[in-house]
Amino acid sequence: MLAAMLIREATPHDWPGMWAFMEGIVRAGETFSWDRDTTESQAGRMWFPEPPGRTFVAVNAEGTVLGTANSVRNHGGGAAHIASASFMVDPRHSGRGVGRALGEHVLEQARKDGFRAMQFNAVVETNTRAVALWRSLGLDVMTTLPAGFHHPAHGYVGLHIMYRRL
Amino acid sequence: MLAAMLIREATPHDWPGMWAFMEGIVRAGETFSWDRDTTESQAGRMWFPEPPGRTFVAVNAEGTVLGTANSVRNHGGGAAHIASASFMVDPRHSGRGVGRALGEHVLEQARKDGFRAMQFNAVVETNTRAVALWRSLGLDVMTTLPAGFHHPAHGYVGLHIMYRRL
Repeated sequence: MLAAMLIREATPHDWPGMWAFMEGIVRAGETFSWDRDTTESQAGRMWFPEPPGRTFVAVNAEGTVLGTANSVRNHGGGAAHIASASFMVDPRHSGRGVGRALGEHVLEQARKDGFRAMQFNAVVETNTRAVALWRSLGLDVMTTLPAGFHHPAHGYVGLHIMYRRL
Repeated sequence: MLAAMLIREATPHDWPGMWAFMEGIVRAGETFSWDRDTTESQAGRMWFPEPPGRTFVAVNAEGTVLGTANSVRNHGGGAAHIASASFMVDPRHSGRGVGRALGEHVLEQARKDGFRAMQFNAVVETNTRAVALWRSLGLDVMTTLPAGFHHPAHGYVGLHIMYRRL
């Protein structure tokens, strides 16, 4: 954990600092099920969902964005109590607890917002660090869609659906 | 199977005949994870997805809409080969093979469109007829999210995620 890291709601002012590392993650296409040619404006619209969706940033003492997350309602109607969330951490700041802090925050906020469960729809099985992190935060791999993800280096790999009650 | 049933792409002209039975299904909230107060215009936007999404109707010889389906890309990027689909059949015409014909058509069209798998994200476990139908079309229940759906009569029930390769 960084000595001074703040998780707060993101604002449009944060976007340049967010996209600065998000773009590389999107273009790599190894962990995220977004089109690799997603434009900055498309990404901005997707990453700032309408309420009850939320967008968060993790910033250090200098105000640098280290990582970001968003949370959304995963379904409507009778399944509206299930949230989902997505996470991107600047690779230059990985391994320092940014993802864990964002994950804990998102789960806690979703609970406060009245959601009863959190579902991650598409966790690439080769993204082992993320899978281990989400497991440690109480999410279970409910199923793995066989050949659910075409990894640019590994070819077709499994796509986990992870879930926990809140 | 009805003697004369045609499955074709839906057009905006079909919408009144579609919404005529869709509204009751949405308002009941027993099988669909849409908000029960979804308006007609919201429903229209959701049910006619942008390409590569498609919308189909099943019509009888008189041109009456018996049921409808849509299919969408369920993810982007490395998971863009997974489609999803949704179905609504007019209860007045249920039990006559309309859902099966729509399901077969949607699977075949998705295959032609280059999708490699079909995922149903939210099949309410108490919707046993639909579950049996999708099983008979080769979809497996990959997992059941516990208490994933709040049914107006049965309370919290499981929500199936179903999947098959194409």
